[in-house]
Amino acid sequence: MKIAIIGSTGAVGQELKRLLQEKNADSSALICFDSKSSISFDGIDLAFFCVSKEVAKELIPKAREKGVLCIDSSTAYRADPDVPLVIPEINGHILDQHQGIIASPNCTTTLMLLPLAPLHRRFGIKRIVAATYQAVSGAGRGAMEELEEQTKAVLANEVPIPNLFPYPCAFNVFPHESEMDTSGYVAEEIKMHQETRKILDDENVSVTATCVRVPVFRVHSIALNVEFQNPIQREEVLEILKKAPGVVLQNTPIPLDAAQQKPVFCGRIRLDHTQSNTLEMWVVGDQLLKGAALNMIQIAQHKMELCLR
Amino acid sequence: MKIAIIGSTGAVGQELKRLLQEKNADSSALICFDSKSSISFDGIDLAFFCVSKEVAKELIPKAREKGVLCIDSSTAYRADPDVPLVIPEINGHILDQHQGIIASPNCTTTLMLLPLAPLHRRFGIKRIVAATYQAVSGAGRGAMEELEEQTKAVLANEVPIPNLFPYPCAFNVFPHESEMDTSGYVAEEIKMHQETRKILDDENVSVTATCVRVPVFRVHSIALNVEFQNPIQREEVLEILKKAPGVVLQNTPIPLDAAQQKPVFCGRIRLDHTQSNTLEMWVVGDQLLKGAALNMIQIAQHKMELCLR
Repeated sequence: MKIAIIGSTGAVGQELKRLLQEKNADSSALICFDSKSSISFDGIDLAFFCVSKEVAKELIPKAREKGVLCIDSSTAYRADPDVPLVIPEINGHILDQHQGIIASPNCTTTLMLLPLAPLHRRFGIKRIVAATYQAVSGAGRGAMEELEEQTKAVLANEVPIPNLFPYPCAFNVFPHESEMDTSGYVAEEIKMHQETRKILDDENVSVTATCVRVPVFRVHSIALNVEFQNPIQREEVLEILKKAPGVVLQNTPIPLDAAQQKPVFCGRIRLDHTQSNTLEMWVVGDQLLKGAALNMIQIAQHKMELCLR
Repeated sequence: MKIAIIGSTGAVGQELKRLLQEKNADSSALICFDSKSSISFDGIDLAFFCVSKEVAKELIPKAREKGVLCIDSSTAYRADPDVPLVIPEINGHILDQHQGIIASPNCTTTLMLLPLAPLHRRFGIKRIVAATYQAVSGAGRGAMEELEEQTKAVLANEVPIPNLFPYPCAFNVFPHESEMDTSGYVAEEIKMHQETRKILDDENVSVTATCVRVPVFRVHSIALNVEFQNPIQREEVLEILKKAPGVVLQNTPIPLDAAQQKPVFCGRIRLDHTQSNTLEMWVVGDQLLKGAALNMIQIAQHKMELCLR
């Protein structure tokens, strides 16, 4: 089987390459394109797209013409009703409904839903209030370099000059840089609402979020306040989280420990003392792994397993 | 009038000294003690305490014996029903009820309530869901040095060693280090609930918070989801915030711009699309100024003005 990575020099593309090479020593089966090179889809069976929405929209139809199965990390097809939006641990069963394109969700949404999906199945989520602490890696490899360079500048008493971000990222936090609509929400916050509904396949779940960048390289954290339809007990919540696939329950997960790790870590589980049926929790996960590259590979694996059944 | 600062070498003490010297060139009127020096309260009219709860509990009764008016930044007396807990813009009118001790609130609570109090008076706050992005300065001057030293270590590929904090603070975020009770909340989160009720003088207001340290030197940020008793309109909310004393309304306030600034900045005002009568907002303020030293000085000024009336 021939596999291609489109956008292989970016932050997610590089993780994908590393993960695929870890799994399969046969390097001739893997073809890497940076997003600007002249790309040929001839002979390719499966392609991972780690490119912008615009480039995905341009290249994926060409890949489909050649019969390539496309796994896309961008927002290009996520809302398309014909495209499954998949976190394999949660809704892997819908993978056989694809028509050649499978979308991998927004990184923050993936990390948030991994612990929440089994709680939703048991107690029924009504409303999520989320505040995010997002690593700069979500804006690509250049953003990680920008954090390092700006931090050095500040420590040398120089004025940090923002480049990829609208604000300095060193020793600072700022609202997520995605576009703001007339309601005042930014695109990242709206994605969390819309993609959660699609992945959980439930229009009764709502998400209101405040998305914020923090000076962390590659791990996102999320403070979650989750209201359920039904009464919750802390012990049962902990039991469910202990068994949740892809989730590790800890007391106080932190980004530094979660970097380069495959699971999503959750902790600080407590009953909200201000409202019944409501839980406070803290979720931490590597944005480049389960938030992006790892989820894409798991989609491919899960798809292959479905084919072999 | 003779003024003393107790704990003058700490982060808050130094800001107090600077602010007092800015206001009054007569340096003989100001006496500074670090918290370990042998302190005499003879001849002192007013003392600012920038020391731990334990030291405040030991020294303030001694100061009271000498008739000193005590303004305390610690948690020692905040819950005491005989001690006014004051943010002058909000409840300065209760300052004349003091019996020699006035408490300045928790920094995060002060910053949060400055924009919320006038909204509470108009619409009646029911429940606040808060997620904080707290600067290291809240843990003192040593913590600011720890952030700088650790950041240098990480950039030099060394392993950062936590000292004042339980976790590394460079390029990391972590749950607030204050003590956790059996409910799972930490002390800082419980303070936000209890002090909010006392300052707003309203037991119908509840706060659930997730308090988090971020690698920022001296400015706290807070993501707030606020449910009101009554219907809200975005335009009226904006009008109220524009007129709120001590508050500056911006589109997207950030810590870097708020550092060394006296007002609290708020922005990202939007109606929560998931629940009626509910507002999302973002608040940013200098923890060492309005969060601590400036509020203490304003308490003293307000008190003097009340005396002169």
